[in-house]
Amino acid sequence: MAMRAAAPGRPRDPAVDRRIAQAALDVFGDGGWAGFAMETVARRAGVGKASLYLRWNTKEALLTDALTAGLVRISDVDTGTLHGDLVELATQMLDLYAGPSSRAALRLSLEAGGIPGVGEHYEAMRMAQIRAARAIVRRGIDRGELPATASVTLLLDTLIGGAMMHALSTPPDRRAALAADTAGHARRLVDFLLHAVTAPTGAGA
Amino acid sequence: MAMRAAAPGRPRDPAVDRRIAQAALDVFGDGGWAGFAMETVARRAGVGKASLYLRWNTKEALLTDALTAGLVRISDVDTGTLHGDLVELATQMLDLYAGPSSRAALRLSLEAGGIPGVGEHYEAMRMAQIRAARAIVRRGIDRGELPATASVTLLLDTLIGGAMMHALSTPPDRRAALAADTAGHARRLVDFLLHAVTAPTGAGA
Repeated sequence: MAMRAAAPGRPRDPAVDRRIAQAALDVFGDGGWAGFAMETVARRAGVGKASLYLRWNTKEALLTDALTAGLVRISDVDTGTLHGDLVELATQMLDLYAGPSSRAALRLSLEAGGIPGVGEHYEAMRMAQIRAARAIVRRGIDRGELPATASVTLLLDTLIGGAMMHALSTPPDRRAALAADTAGHARRLVDFLLHAVTAPTGAGA
Repeated sequence: MAMRAAAPGRPRDPAVDRRIAQAALDVFGDGGWAGFAMETVARRAGVGKASLYLRWNTKEALLTDALTAGLVRISDVDTGTLHGDLVELATQMLDLYAGPSSRAALRLSLEAGGIPGVGEHYEAMRMAQIRAARAIVRRGIDRGELPATASVTLLLDTLIGGAMMHALSTPPDRRAALAADTAGHARRLVDFLLHAVTAPTGAGA
């Protein structure tokens, strides 16, 4: 049954690694943890079950690696300007929720706590992302791009939530067009929200 | 096994109805459709399985009724002002995602399509909510509370997504405080976003 996936001592094929990671996210997205089995992932990736077990002892380890490879890494964002950082952050969220790993990301938010070894990993990743996102806004305040009174929480809730909601509520027939121009929508979203933070107080209805 | 739940010809007890509906949402939220069984719902609600079957022939019918009773009804919002309507809409979203039916609502967005009879119902409910939310913003434009050039999509994505994200990212130890003052947070969110729409163009970073 062993196919192209790495045997011990043989170099890994990155294309196969990516296919396995995406297959794991697909299977998890469709059936959740209850439907997650090595055999199902192997079949979906077109590799032998034995070669999966050569790399991952348990399905918890396989899912953890797939999630680490496939989901968002906000911590890497630092373009030098607040506007650039927020556009990058919104683009990552749109790419995630308009892309093939959308269902896996939603499943994870529901089920992570009940998966042995994954719950702690997910919680640590989520806290790191929240810290990284808040650091983006604080750097903007330090550089004078935002008033010190700006609400970090409101800005990030509406940016991240607005990107997620937009991707999830885009009808299937327009999903591909959005996926092809996530940076364009991210810019419109950031421009809109930066008006909210920088406008003089008292303009509300 | 029959307890207080209605037998044919006997008036229903609204408190029991609510308990059954919440039990159904809890069971669905925890285990999804794969873990949804009449027996589990009956046990959780503290009623006999037989009395559930007297009212609902199928578990699809039970879940549909519970969803209709327990989830958000944006269509009813019309306070007379844009600000009032948006605060009401954001409060409903915060109540939902900071409340006991949060997991059921998330599950539904993932699994509705795969549940016989529920997928169509959910899709129709979701489209009705989108139409009702858009009508709120259009009435605001008609009354002159918003410029005609305002982006309905950006305003609603950030309002609804921002409320949802805030509730879901509030740590468990602060969830009760949020649940007790959803209207307060909704007002801060709406004030923040109305600045974005009404601010003169060009204020972005």
